[in-house]
Amino acid sequence: QTNVQVYGIMDAGVEYVNHANANDGSQVRVVSGGKNTSRWGFRGSEDLGGGLKAVFNLEGGVMLDTGAQDGNLFKRQANVGLEGGFGRVIIGRSFTTTYDLVIKFDPMGFAPNYSWATSGNATGPSKYGMTTAFDNLIKYTGTTGGFTYGATVGMGEQAGSAADGRKYAVGGSWFGGPVGLMAAYEQINGNTLAATGNRDKTSAFHLGAEYKAGSMTYQAGMRGYKLESGKAATPDVRGDTYWAGATWAAYPWTVTGAVYHVNTKNLPADKDADPTMLVARAMYSLSKRVWLYASVAHAKADHGQLVGLSRDDPGFGSTQTGITTGIQYRF
Amino acid sequence: QTNVQVYGIMDAGVEYVNHANANDGSQVRVVSGGKNTSRWGFRGSEDLGGGLKAVFNLEGGVMLDTGAQDGNLFKRQANVGLEGGFGRVIIGRSFTTTYDLVIKFDPMGFAPNYSWATSGNATGPSKYGMTTAFDNLIKYTGTTGGFTYGATVGMGEQAGSAADGRKYAVGGSWFGGPVGLMAAYEQINGNTLAATGNRDKTSAFHLGAEYKAGSMTYQAGMRGYKLESGKAATPDVRGDTYWAGATWAAYPWTVTGAVYHVNTKNLPADKDADPTMLVARAMYSLSKRVWLYASVAHAKADHGQLVGLSRDDPGFGSTQTGITTGIQYRF
Amino acid sequence: QTNVQVYGIMDAGVEYVNHANANDGSQVRVVSGGKNTSRWGFRGSEDLGGGLKAVFNLEGGVMLDTGAQDGNLFKRQANVGLEGGFGRVIIGRSFTTTYDLVIKFDPMGFAPNYSWATSGNATGPSKYGMTTAFDNLIKYTGTTGGFTYGATVGMGEQAGSAADGRKYAVGGSWFGGPVGLMAAYEQINGNTLAATGNRDKTSAFHLGAEYKAGSMTYQAGMRGYKLESGKAATPDVRGDTYWAGATWAAYPWTVTGAVYHVNTKNLPADKDADPTMLVARAMYSLSKRVWLYASVAHAKADHGQLVGLSRDDPGFGSTQTGITTGIQYRF
Repeated sequence: QTNVQVYGIMDAGVEYVNHANANDGSQVRVVSGGKNTSRWGFRGSEDLGGGLKAVFNLEGGVMLDTGAQDGNLFKRQANVGLEGGFGRVIIGRSFTTTYDLVIKFDPMGFAPNYSWATSGNATGPSKYGMTTAFDNLIKYTGTTGGFTYGATVGMGEQAGSAADGRKYAVGGSWFGGPVGLMAAYEQINGNTLAATGNRDKTSAFHLGAEYKAGSMTYQAGMRGYKLESGKAATPDVRGDTYWAGATWAAYPWTVTGAVYHVNTKNLPADKDADPTMLVARAMYSLSKRVWLYASVAHAKADHGQLVGLSRDDPGFGSTQTGITTGIQYRF
Repeated sequence: QTNVQVYGIMDAGVEYVNHANANDGSQVRVVSGGKNTSRWGFRGSEDLGGGLKAVFNLEGGVMLDTGAQDGNLFKRQANVGLEGGFGRVIIGRSFTTTYDLVIKFDPMGFAPNYSWATSGNATGPSKYGMTTAFDNLIKYTGTTGGFTYGATVGMGEQAGSAADGRKYAVGGSWFGGPVGLMAAYEQINGNTLAATGNRDKTSAFHLGAEYKAGSMTYQAGMRGYKLESGKAATPDVRGDTYWAGATWAAYPWTVTGAVYHVNTKNLPADKDADPTMLVARAMYSLSKRVWLYASVAHAKADHGQLVGLSRDDPGFGSTQTGITTGIQYRF
Repeated sequence: QTNVQVYGIMDAGVEYVNHANANDGSQVRVVSGGKNTSRWGFRGSEDLGGGLKAVFNLEGGVMLDTGAQDGNLFKRQANVGLEGGFGRVIIGRSFTTTYDLVIKFDPMGFAPNYSWATSGNATGPSKYGMTTAFDNLIKYTGTTGGFTYGATVGMGEQAGSAADGRKYAVGGSWFGGPVGLMAAYEQINGNTLAATGNRDKTSAFHLGAEYKAGSMTYQAGMRGYKLESGKAATPDVRGDTYWAGATWAAYPWTVTGAVYHVNTKNLPADKDADPTMLVARAMYSLSKRVWLYASVAHAKADHGQLVGLSRDDPGFGSTQTGITTGIQYRF
């Protein structure tokens, strides 16, 4: 048998949020994946000689509060490929080059409780966000010295038009001494609309920077998001997301503070939510694989617009405060 | 890598039942889980030092007759927690304290073919039963000498009302010499009805006792079930389930006989099914992990009411007889 | 713990096909399972002494292009049984005796890209094919010298009629020196129709032969398919599938050429598609577990009927040409 590993992250906790329904009620709930999405999977590699390896990965998400699968069975990773001195090429389903690069520059590491680095929550879930994973992808990742770079294509698979539905992401990062820098770009094509001959086209670019000094790490990043509509006379949807934060690490403690802000654009002034979220998190390591953590966040929107801490759930008020305490076990 | 185990139970057999449809036809079928529900999963633990461990469990059910999953992917177990001298605390989805305690006092061990200890089958499936597992749970289990005790809370997660939808179970057992005793209580809240300001509330208490003498084990148990309706002027639904049985074990043989009886209440006399089931089972161990088994059961209902052997399927006659032969493999 | 193995096949590639939609557009797509269906599972065995073993198998399909499961969670294998000098008996869900026997006589080994040995594609997907797997099955497989033989029953589980919905398959193969021979028969019962008292009945027989000479293997096979309708005055549906091919193997290369032809019957002459597919495939082994492969196929139908290379997708033209390049990793 080749080298196969069963692995996963089990992350669950209890969250309190206010403004949790239309009647302004608060809620206490069991959450799955407060720090990182709970997941399970298999991965393996086979040495082919000459520095070449075959690699595969199957990984699915799981909701620990109900035991339900989180989307498709192996939604997170379902791919096979080759890895060698040239880098790594995989085919199937996986996260994008953008996702892989940006996560290193989010102080909260895309934590569901709480980060807006994958998508900013303003007047609706997942708006102005990145596309975290592609179906039908081919992904290349390479490294040269301090540089990591890559490109991902997700085929549209529309008969008669290779460009309809096609997705791609490209970018790179560089780490040298105390400094890290990152840039990434993605474009998501919709299908051509018969009425106009145009298609929806979503693009997003990301920039990030990091500076380390002793036990402190400082990070900042931004995303410029734009949706050009294929329909005639439909204005673009635009929103820029900015974040910055600092992490202090002294084993067994890791403490992070961060701020996220979305600048919604092309909206009437009285609908311009421009939401901001402040987050703080303390983690205590019980071992290399097990952490206890507590996160607190407060979000607010301008002009009485609705806002939610979670990138997946809409909000019911113009502010929301939440506290999550949990445990994470990586196996 | 931490200690991770792939495990499961593969249990399949062939069952004959009479009165299997409205035309009184009999049926021969392949059944999954005649002795115990077929399942698969992962579990692991990580030593944190000082007697403390982190623990996790993912477990799903599988129908061996079709290969389909049995409900949510990891419906049976999806939890993470800590275990130490203080006991064990987990968070996520799991079986309840009631389930864990009562199974030790059911001579048939909750066997799908055949036991009514989790739910009594009378005029409909799963009536008058326990709630076997909770979503959104926090469960504590402790032991002190011969005592095992615990409590489970399943959060209702209704914004604005912590009590709506909340579930809890509490209980304990004691084993000393040849004697074992058990008591457990559970309460399941519905949501508040606007019309009355009340909510449905289901409660069940369980009592059990065991006595061992040589190769014989004698067990008896009961459940008192009550559903108080939140609607005005709606009578309670009540039903008490009683069981008793004996097991003779002499390796490689284990032979069990048991009787289950449900006393349905608050029904018109001519609808009062009060069903009874007699069961006998012989198991032959091929190894520590593999058994062959044969079970035979006969159920009858009073007043011409319908009854079925299975707690999941309704019956088509006022009696039903079934025979199951199968194999179980624990890996 | 008993002997448990995590295993699977990860197979993905890129396919080009022409005539991929009604507008005659071509398509480039990521495909999962070009050479063999991508899958994952668990299998194990427990030594019971005296040459007897308990065995189990859970195996599901996975679409590597999306991460979705391919049908029921463990649709491919979900069974438990015993194996010894007498052969192997399993109960649950599995492939049939026919499937197990015929795959050895298909030059392309049931490759999704491209083979019609499981089902012939003509004027619709999966017509005139075998039934690859049964629910509710009991399967026996035995070997005696060069003979392998077996029988599979899939219970209909219709109350009141054991024959309604029942399926069975029986057959055997013999290998001796350079020669191999195979014959198999299957019958699939529908349910009795009240109007006629008859039921639909599908039957298929398979014959196959193989001859090896040096690094060459020559194979040919056929299936005779018939659907007798339970409805009055409804003609049979009939179609015979024939194939032949040759494989040249010289490590690390394996090259195969094959032709498949379906003779559709009982159709008006101008609807008689009688489709033919020519296939060639080259495989290059990177290790015992990892292959690169490229397949090319061309299918055509008579009388302007539609035809598709894939047994799962309908075609949009009277010919289709496809090329698939991929990688397969067996773990």
